[in-house]
Amino acid sequence: MNDALIKEFQAVVGKENVMDAEPDKQAYSYDSAVLDPVIPELVVRPTNSEQLGKVVALCNENGMPITPRGAGTNLSGGTIPGRNGVVILTNAMNKILEINEEDLYAVVQPGVVTAQFANEVAKRGLFYPPDPGSQNVSTLAGNVAENAGGLRGLKYGVTKDYVMGVDFFDVNGGLVKTGSRTVKCVTGFNLSALQVAGEGSLGVINEIILKLVAPPQDNKAMMAVFDSIDKASETVAAIIANKIVPCTLELMDKKTIELVEAFTKVGLPTEADAILLIEVDGHPAQVADEAEKVIEIAKKCGAIDVKAAKDAAERHNIWEARRAALPALARARPTTVLEDATVPRSQIPNMIRSINEIAKKHNVMIGTFGHAGDGNLHPTILCDRRDKAEFERVEAAVDEIFDVALSLKGTLSGEHGIGLAKAKWLEKETSKATIDYAKKIKAAVDPKGILNPGKIIGA
Amino acid sequence: MNDALIKEFQAVVGKENVMDAEPDKQAYSYDSAVLDPVIPELVVRPTNSEQLGKVVALCNENGMPITPRGAGTNLSGGTIPGRNGVVILTNAMNKILEINEEDLYAVVQPGVVTAQFANEVAKRGLFYPPDPGSQNVSTLAGNVAENAGGLRGLKYGVTKDYVMGVDFFDVNGGLVKTGSRTVKCVTGFNLSALQVAGEGSLGVINEIILKLVAPPQDNKAMMAVFDSIDKASETVAAIIANKIVPCTLELMDKKTIELVEAFTKVGLPTEADAILLIEVDGHPAQVADEAEKVIEIAKKCGAIDVKAAKDAAERHNIWEARRAALPALARARPTTVLEDATVPRSQIPNMIRSINEIAKKHNVMIGTFGHAGDGNLHPTILCDRRDKAEFERVEAAVDEIFDVALSLKGTLSGEHGIGLAKAKWLEKETSKATIDYAKKIKAAVDPKGILNPGKIIGA
Repeated sequence: MNDALIKEFQAVVGKENVMDAEPDKQAYSYDSAVLDPVIPELVVRPTNSEQLGKVVALCNENGMPITPRGAGTNLSGGTIPGRNGVVILTNAMNKILEINEEDLYAVVQPGVVTAQFANEVAKRGLFYPPDPGSQNVSTLAGNVAENAGGLRGLKYGVTKDYVMGVDFFDVNGGLVKTGSRTVKCVTGFNLSALQVAGEGSLGVINEIILKLVAPPQDNKAMMAVFDSIDKASETVAAIIANKIVPCTLELMDKKTIELVEAFTKVGLPTEADAILLIEVDGHPAQVADEAEKVIEIAKKCGAIDVKAAKDAAERHNIWEARRAALPALARARPTTVLEDATVPRSQIPNMIRSINEIAKKHNVMIGTFGHAGDGNLHPTILCDRRDKAEFERVEAAVDEIFDVALSLKGTLSGEHGIGLAKAKWLEKETSKATIDYAKKIKAAVDPKGILNPGKIIGA
Repeated sequence: MNDALIKEFQAVVGKENVMDAEPDKQAYSYDSAVLDPVIPELVVRPTNSEQLGKVVALCNENGMPITPRGAGTNLSGGTIPGRNGVVILTNAMNKILEINEEDLYAVVQPGVVTAQFANEVAKRGLFYPPDPGSQNVSTLAGNVAENAGGLRGLKYGVTKDYVMGVDFFDVNGGLVKTGSRTVKCVTGFNLSALQVAGEGSLGVINEIILKLVAPPQDNKAMMAVFDSIDKASETVAAIIANKIVPCTLELMDKKTIELVEAFTKVGLPTEADAILLIEVDGHPAQVADEAEKVIEIAKKCGAIDVKAAKDAAERHNIWEARRAALPALARARPTTVLEDATVPRSQIPNMIRSINEIAKKHNVMIGTFGHAGDGNLHPTILCDRRDKAEFERVEAAVDEIFDVALSLKGTLSGEHGIGLAKAKWLEKETSKATIDYAKKIKAAVDPKGILNPGKIIGA
């Protein structure tokens, strides 16, 4: 990049916030997806809204691709830069601007870390439910851009259900203001919602208004152990059929249980074929009723053991085991391909059966865990990307997993996003008219195609 | 319109579903907004998806404006036709295609009536919460297009919170498929959400996937009577501050109480300055706890009387009184201008004070009722549109009501939509960049500007 242009960026954000040294550029060339890195031309770190808008405009004037980046935790390549691109770091714009306890909303800058935000909200006696696996490092604008999910989707929904408004910069650096601090708002097109899952390809998020809710008064965590994964799936369906909506309803298959136990030694039943980890929350009487019913249902469906956590420590153990699932699986082989094909929850038995058949057919190792309550499973393929033959089998298996999910009226991605990783499959789920419609919108608001190019709808 | 073109429409939908007689055209020239009618050129009634897509394409080929119309209950002119336009009636596409009890969703055609749908869902032991005032006649696609609200917004959200997916026809008659039957879905741009509140200006809705929830096991309705509207407002704030989220929390001011009582004779306290109508729902123990606390809070805030409904009949009376608010007000004068400027709920005392000052200043009669719990008030101006001088004062008052709502960090419209009625105010709330961004999207997906032209972003 020429020095004159670098000086222009420096004039906007200060010398210390423009990075073009090789190690810096390397550090922002990849994210958590299993994809090839792309070295950006420049890394820029605006410290306020005005700077952010000017950086966007400057990139557009010079036709330089922009990739906004929070913590880079996304799993679909949403933060892999464009060729000769500029990475805009949001981590200096990390202020919680307002937590309104009377009106149950908060206003935040893009780079606020999810868990820190949830903690600040909790200190005021309120609750921000979305809890993606990466919450300890992920940022709120990243959560919005990917529509991050998490363990509480079944009862509490996902990030999109908490976005009341988004202010974002258009490609010319104009500030687009959408949504409201009010519970109801129908003023203009629903452009906030369009930024949700937009992966930074339709604008650059400047501020977010997030809905807060009253926290549950009580909760109860349980673990149910099964000698067949079908019985576990039946239990999931029976719980919902009984009009119980747990806040969390997670499943682990045999492979996951074995690897988690080897990793954590928390005492998981390694002889089991599957376990369900369940938490109900709400009013104490409701929690007591629902916990009792859940245990009864699990037993009726053939659980060989059901335990309720007796205290906070036991509850902690249950969720530690769940949180260990991904790191435990990731230890098994050098490369972890974490998928999130999602099906209507009644199709979970079919989905799991198919995943296991696909694993056998292609001779790949797959551990499956995930959010059974909302049909969002994480078949996790453990492999070595450097082994070309094996990785081809992995790619064939992933293809088939998507095909099965779609045939069961599911979707390619429940919560990880399309990014670069899944753009090529998008038409299979939707239609040519859908892609065309999306491309028209993209071209209209970003005529030079510089807003995080290649993501979602392809290049 | 020339006969050859009429024959083309007849060839698509059948002779009986193309109407161009004057009385038919008159009947679809207006909606529930206080705006001038526009006579359409033609009224067409497709009976299935294929016909709907072909009608859209035919209109586009011939540059004829399209206005999709459910029941025409919207209050902002969203279904007033364009000049020389075609009204597409959705009432022959009124099938509930699927109610999935295991996976908690339903798939519906655009013309299904809201209350009929909610009843069918209730028969299966499930719950569809959105309940706009017009639910007995309004249609689900109309609800989506306007993002209809209702009395349960505070706890259960509005229509947008129940839209999992929308299939819609683009302007060329291509079928765009967005969203999913799964709880989580991040596959592609969030185009379903863009159809929400889009008022038919970005596509023509063909099918909707709606989320269903488990119904509350119990509920309790209460009425609290106040000698000052400020005390009623304080009660609203105090209920929320106590982490109680009622499913319904409605307010009526003095004028509304007087007119409702004159109309219904249900025994409302006409000496009161304001009443709150409150319902809590959920687990029976929670309902009992919350009802007790609500009564205590109301008394502490100075309620002169608080009554809980003892049985279903008393509960019915409370909600009958609330539902009578609009018809009762509407009887007072020939013209009813029903507004829905919305503020963060803590600003309700300020908003009501301002509305009363504005009424005095402009010498207009305003009755105010509405969804106090979510800040969505309905200041209702009772007037005679034929009295030009008076109506000018009404328009001045409406202008000021919007200004106050915005100054209190509120919004122009909580649930009625922008339509033709409020397009001119849109930039005041947002920004020029916002309008430009919206117009670019509109032009990209509808280059001839035939999809319900003039709505939201103006002509």
